[in-house]
Order: sequence, then structure tokens, then C-alpha cells
Amino acid sequence: MQLQSSFSFFMPTRVLHGQNIIQDEQSRLGEMGTRCLIVTGASSAKASGAFQDLTSALENLGIRYELFDQVEPNPSLENVAQGGDAARRFEPDFIAAIGGGSPLDAAKAIAVLAVNDIPPQQLYDGHFANTPLPIAAVPTTAGTGSEVTPYSVLTITDQETKKGFGGPDLFPKLAFLDPRYCQSLPFQVSVDTAVDALSHLVEGYLSARANDASDMLAERGMALWGTCLPALQIGEGALDTAVRDRLLVASALGGMTISHTGTAYVHSLGYPLTFYHDIPHGQANGLLLPGFLRHAESVNPDRVAAILRHLDHRSTKSLGDTLASLFPRRVQLSQDELDSYVEKTLPTKNVTHSPGTVTREVLINTLAENFSRP
Amino acid sequence: MQLQSSFSFFMPTRVLHGQNIIQDEQSRLGEMGTRCLIVTGASSAKASGAFQDLTSALENLGIRYELFDQVEPNPSLENVAQGGDAARRFEPDFIAAIGGGSPLDAAKAIAVLAVNDIPPQQLYDGHFANTPLPIAAVPTTAGTGSEVTPYSVLTITDQETKKGFGGPDLFPKLAFLDPRYCQSLPFQVSVDTAVDALSHLVEGYLSARANDASDMLAERGMALWGTCLPALQIGEGALDTAVRDRLLVASALGGMTISHTGTAYVHSLGYPLTFYHDIPHGQANGLLLPGFLRHAESVNPDRVAAILRHLDHRSTKSLGDTLASLFPRRVQLSQDELDSYVEKTLPTKNVTHSPGTVTREVLINTLAENFSRP
Repeated sequence: MQLQSSFSFFMPTRVLHGQNIIQDEQSRLGEMGTRCLIVTGASSAKASGAFQDLTSALENLGIRYELFDQVEPNPSLENVAQGGDAARRFEPDFIAAIGGGSPLDAAKAIAVLAVNDIPPQQLYDGHFANTPLPIAAVPTTAGTGSEVTPYSVLTITDQETKKGFGGPDLFPKLAFLDPRYCQSLPFQVSVDTAVDALSHLVEGYLSARANDASDMLAERGMALWGTCLPALQIGEGALDTAVRDRLLVASALGGMTISHTGTAYVHSLGYPLTFYHDIPHGQANGLLLPGFLRHAESVNPDRVAAILRHLDHRSTKSLGDTLASLFPRRVQLSQDELDSYVEKTLPTKNVTHSPGTVTREVLINTLAENFSRP
Repeated sequence: MQLQSSFSFFMPTRVLHGQNIIQDEQSRLGEMGTRCLIVTGASSAKASGAFQDLTSALENLGIRYELFDQVEPNPSLENVAQGGDAARRFEPDFIAAIGGGSPLDAAKAIAVLAVNDIPPQQLYDGHFANTPLPIAAVPTTAGTGSEVTPYSVLTITDQETKKGFGGPDLFPKLAFLDPRYCQSLPFQVSVDTAVDALSHLVEGYLSARANDASDMLAERGMALWGTCLPALQIGEGALDTAVRDRLLVASALGGMTISHTGTAYVHSLGYPLTFYHDIPHGQANGLLLPGFLRHAESVNPDRVAAILRHLDHRSTKSLGDTLASLFPRRVQLSQDELDSYVEKTLPTKNVTHSPGTVTREVLINTLAENFSRP
């Protein structure tokens, strides 16, 4: 037997999971300091109930807090710079982030900018003179996995795309997973974000950087996610708290997976779809996954077969059809658009980390599957 | 469906795995400081090659080091106090621990005592004024899992037993897993320590504290360990580097499992067997596992069936016979000894964390299986 295994593993976030987990484990917040900046978007934190639970815990502990609730969907560098200003004014000991991927990713940038007075473009240098503030993350969607990753993806307006930065100090110190916070999500948002989680699991499992540790996480996550797919197909009524709970754990497992592998080309090819066509991130990924799986099947049929088993499908075709059926609208791209998005994607490291050789043709075919006229 | 899942997870050690991993990842040591105390036993560090690899990395990095190589097998409080003295004299920034469970566990105590001038009995208080020194752990056996746990088990001579202490700051910062360091182990030591790893996996999987995260770790570890059992039965020649590599990962997974669950009564019942009869720790556990599994089967037959599947056995009887066959000698205990060891075990928290109700009779039956005359 060849000895090529690797079980290199690093995931330092303390994950706390269960209903009422903030209340049950509030003492953990007390260990983070006495001043907290809450970072969130305009409404989801309050609608989910997470804001009330968090502020009630902070008040119990005598922790002073201030609110920065101006995180935009797909936050820009300008947007996180505002958050950095707010943080430097308030001088918190730590940041509590509530929301989907946008507030969680923005919070990581703000955690850096709070203690490093640098232009936000310098976030991409990855080295910061001062250690970013610690973060407690409270996801209100089951998809991003950002609560357990060291990554933050921001929109760079003048480059017309989204781009990630990261570093080991950006893993949140704490992640509070409570499925009740996802209960108020609109059904389509639940589906979109769930498919983002699946995309993390699948891209990580098929990544050229996959190892035995990330495989363990991805396989567990896919098995769990697979049990939720029927509910996503049935519709709103089927998404009970038990399903949402499994999706939330699957999402965390997806984050833990890509913390080891990064994402593959699905993510970088999806960013222009979000930037130019306003297609929600998970939906963009979901509509690119069928072509990605078909490409991966030619490189690594055993792994794709394992994915199909976990998701209870017999072929990449049937799984692709199922995924496409989860999303109502479809954008048709012109040849110029296809070419342009492929050009943007080819130089990304996500392409290098993807299985096999990813040519222009592979990317065009992947896009064509759901985004061009038949 | 009932919603009772928990995926609470915490395992902050950075695990680095592969042949020549210290050399490949030596820069990680540079992040820990400029003065290193190496903690190890009399010989295994050097025999394994780990000492040479580590000191060569430290020299490359210009890190000053001193050696404390006086860790005894089953180290006592007196022994770690000596190490603490050595550390306070040298004032290291971090500790590098090389060895099996004894040096790794001793290093955790020394990491506390290096910066807290307290009598070693106070280790059991669990709260330390100063944060213990960070540890880089290099296992030379595939069994302890101590490289990824926050636990240290020491011998308390005047209480005539072994007892563990721990705390979240005692997770090693780094664990370097290189299967080459296990290659020089005597065959029976390889078997004993491998069975210790199995015991961690099985006790964690059957623990009353098991959750979805620890299950993931335990199931992966048991599946991997199961592929190694035939080699352990065949003998020395079958223990090639590939098998040793899988055992080393299974052992780390065992450590990651019990970091979440703790151990069950097998461990606390095994300590007197080691203390009074000098039975190696893994061997003591291995000879108690058959009775433990039989007890657990009456409480949770599904989980025991899963264990049997992973280990490719049809019944607890046949698995018990296989385990017993791995150990050459057998101690026969008198009725007084049986009673006394059960008395010592009953008040331990390991009993509380074990599956079902653990009565005196359960413990007597477990011991009787391999330690009393038929």
C-alpha cells in the first residue's frame, strides 16, 4: 500500500450548538472582554431572534455593546471601511457577528481594521501588524460556514468582482449554532444558502487539496445534507427545525472542510454571476455544480460516485436536474459574457485547486449548462 | 423527528501529519519563541529519530534549547515537579514534548509548573494564575492521543493511583505526526498502545457525553483502526509504515474523540492494574474492553454493532477473544484485589460518563473477564 495519506488538521473555533445555546453558554462571551461591537445587516439579526438573545446575554454579563448594523449584502471594501471606523471609535474588546455570510465576512474585515488603521485594499496583504479582534459568530443562515472559516469574501467594486482574504487569526473564537435563528428565513433563501453549504462540501471533497481530515468532514456533511434534500424539494412546510438543524451542522461541516481545502472553481466562476446579475451566491454555485460534477467525474469518478451516494442520486445528470429544479429563474448569458467571466476565473487559485485540468472549455461548458440558450 | 443533536466541537491543536513533517513544517516552531525546553523520556526520543529531527529544526531556526529527559514511565507528581524546576531555571518560551503518553502528559504538567510556582498537587485545581507555556507535541507511539487532548494523567504515589487533570489551555498548539517515529517501537508496545487508541475511540463512542462531532471522529478512527487489526494479529512483519501511519491517525482521532467525551470506566478501572501490577496502560484497557463492550451492548446494542462492523467482528465474544489474544501474560487477581479496584473506580467521573448504570457488579464482571481464575 502506498503511503500518501495526510491528516493535517486545524480548526480552532469553539463550536457550540443547540437550541438556546447563547443563553446556555453565555459565560463564554464573558471571557472575551467587556466591550463588544455587534456587526450585522439591516434586519436579519433582529428578525431571527439572535440579536435579542445576544444582547440579553451581554447585558447579563455587564458587557457594553454598540451596534454596527450597516453591513450590505455582498459587502464592499467601502462598507467594511465604515465598520472599521465604527470599531476604532468604540474600541471594543471583541466583535459579535450575526447574520448570513455577508455580516460574518464583513465582521472579519472589521476585526482587522479595528486595530489596524489601513486602507481596506490592504486586507488582501494577509499580514496585519496587530492581531485582529476576536469574533463570536452567530449564523442566521445554514450555508456560509463562515462561522468556522478563516476567510472573508468582499466585493471589490472597481475590479467588478468578489475576492477573498484570510488568515489563521480570522477563525472566529466562538460559533453559536442555534437552528431557531434560521426559522424565519424566506424559503428560497433557505434553499440558496443550503446549496452554498453543499457546494463547500462538494468542492472541498473534490479539491486537489483534499486530505483525510477534510474528507472526514465533507463526507459527514454530505451524508447529513443528503437527508435534507427531500425537504428542500418539497417546499416550505417540510423545513422544520429538525431539518434546519441538520442543515446548520452540514453548513458548519462545509466551512470546516473548506478551511482545509479552500473552494474550487465553482466559487470563482460564480462571483461574476452575483456581481453582474445579482444571482444569490448559493444559487450561482448550485447552477454551476452540475457542470463541475460532470468535469470532476471524468477526473475522479470514485469521488463523484460517493457524492451521488450521499445525495441519493444515480447520475450527475439526475443530480444536476434536481439542483436546477431548486431555483426558479434563469439568466441567459451572451457569448461575450460567457467569455468575460471565464477570463476572470481562469487566473484564480480556485482553478488550480480544482480537480484535473481546468481549461477555458471546461469553464465554458460549466457555465453553458444552466446559463446559455440550449 | 426529535431534535436532540449536538455538534459542539473544540479541538484547537494544529495537527501536521506526514513523513518528515517536522522538517517540512519547521517554520511553525519559529512562531513559538526563541527558547525551547525539550521534555522526553530516557531513550525513546533518540531511538525514534524524533529528537534529531526536532533539534535540527530548532538549530536551523536559531532556537536555544535545553533537554529534560528524565520523564519516568507513568510519571509521578514528584517527577513533573523536577521538570517544573528545570523549566523555571531555563525559562523557555515553549515546550517540545517527544514520546509516548508519559512524556506528553508530563510536558503538560511542566508547562503549567514552568510559569506557576505551585506544588504539583495543585495541578488538580485546574485553574492557573498564569497561562501554561505552549507545547509542540511529537508522539512516538500510536496510542496516547495526548498530542491532541487537554488532559494529563499522572501517578499520585500516596493515593496509589493515576489521576488526570486538564484544561483548555493544555491542548498542544502543534502536533507533529510522523509514522517513522513509531517504526522502532518493540512489537508488543506497538500493540499495547494501538489498543489504547482503540479504547479511546470505543469509550468515546459509547460515552454518555458522545455527540455528533465526537461520533464523526470516533467512527472515522474505528474504521481506520479496523484496517490495522489484522496486522496487529499477524505480528511484527506486518506492521509496515503504512499500517503505522493509519494507527497514528487513528490514535489522533481517538484523542480528538476523548477531548469531547472524556474516557469511560475502562480507563479508571485500568489505572490500579497499571499501578499495582505494572500492566501497561493499553494492555490494561484492552483486557477490560471485552467486559465493557458486553455491558454496553445491553444498554446500546446499535452502537456496539457499529463498533463490531468497523472492526470486522460478529460478536462481542469474538472481538473480546481477539483482543485478549493480543496480550501474552495474564494477572490473576484475588477477590480482595477485585473489590479494592472496584472501590477505587466507583467514585470516578468516568463511571458517570459510561453508558447505562455502572454498578459494582458491572465492574466486577468486567474485571473478572480477563483477570480472575475461571
